Amino acid sequence: MLVITIMARDGQAKHLRQQELIRYLTNNPLLKDEELAALFGVSIQTIRLDRSELQIPELRERMKTALQSRRPVRSLASDELVGELLDIEVGRCGVSMLKITPEMCFRKNLVARGHHLFAQANSLAVAVIDAEVALTGAARVLFKHPVTAGDLVLARATVSSQQGHKTVVRVVSRVKETVILEGTFTVFALSEEDNQ
Amino acid sequence: MLVITIMARDGQAKHLRQQELIRYLTNNPLLKDEELAALFGVSIQTIRLDRSELQIPELRERMKTALQSRRPVRSLASDELVGELLDIEVGRCGVSMLKITPEMCFRKNLVARGHHLFAQANSLAVAVIDAEVALTGAARVLFKHPVTAGDLVLARATVSSQQGHKTVVRVVSRVKETVILEGTFTVFALSEEDNQ
Repeated sequence: MLVITIMARDGQAKHLRQQELIRYLTNNPLLKDEELAALFGVSIQTIRLDRSELQIPELRERMKTALQSRRPVRSLASDELVGELLDIEVGRCGVSMLKITPEMCFRKNLVARGHHLFAQANSLAVAVIDAEVALTGAARVLFKHPVTAGDLVLARATVSSQQGHKTVVRVVSRVKETVILEGTFTVFALSEEDNQ
Repeated sequence: MLVITIMARDGQAKHLRQQELIRYLTNNPLLKDEELAALFGVSIQTIRLDRSELQIPELRERMKTALQSRRPVRSLASDELVGELLDIEVGRCGVSMLKITPEMCFRKNLVARGHHLFAQANSLAVAVIDAEVALTGAARVLFKHPVTAGDLVLARATVSSQQGHKTVVRVVSRVKETVILEGTFTVFALSEEDNQ
């Protein structure tokens, strides 16, 4: 009886972990098996088995898919984004990743300086705007948790409203599961005439 | 009579201009004679005469005075500030200048990207905090006017409230007389113990 109970509990734990795994990878397609293993407190092998059962491809494949599904960004040149663009639906949402290097941090404590996190979020907010020229009019940012050198910051931008030239974009940045930044950017699209 | 009227009017205009000149240079000690001449629509020679009458030293001297009156910044290493520190009273206020280079701008229209203006304002807000370690918790920024390559941005930070570890710093950045950014930064000072 004990063995069955443990098996049932194990089965339930596995089911819960796999549900979580799907949620994690939906939010953050770049999480490595090692990172997932550390998050769940299981072995890397277990994560690989989970992915195999769930038919979730490996990191390299997930990145390729994300890159292929990209539609062209109009408001920024490709090297003008701060961070690496992983996915974008212009006019709707986008995802970028920024690796925090020691140069981005205060030397005293290797905590990332706010303006780098702001730059990632703000440039992603601009990138999702469906216009040739887009300028940020206002920004409200909460730095929820310190980020340190070596961290991978995944920012996710979502258009939350649009009225005429004015678009409000909400950005949430995470390191693994921890929300480190929440921002609201009001971006104005300039028409071709405005810009002449 | 006409000559006297014109002379009186000229005298009044000069008085008003000199009052404005004092105000401009108090707000922005880095304005060049050329820039002031353009602002008032008078010759550079007129500005020089005004300065001489008002005993306002030349730019180089004004910069030197600003730099000498500086008190040591604790929260940032000297090269960690974005922009050049012109004046600071730790715990109260500070002034910095950032020259906008083409690399800081969108290539399409040479308009400065918001995160550079944010970085100047945010790092100045951190610099005025009287603590070894200070981290930004929240920021609210309005980008009031586009800034272009070649512009000199003067940011002025003032501590507007302080409660325990939490300091609210208000930053206003200008290009000449135009306000281009208004920001409110909530900065948290970390005690030595917090940081260990």
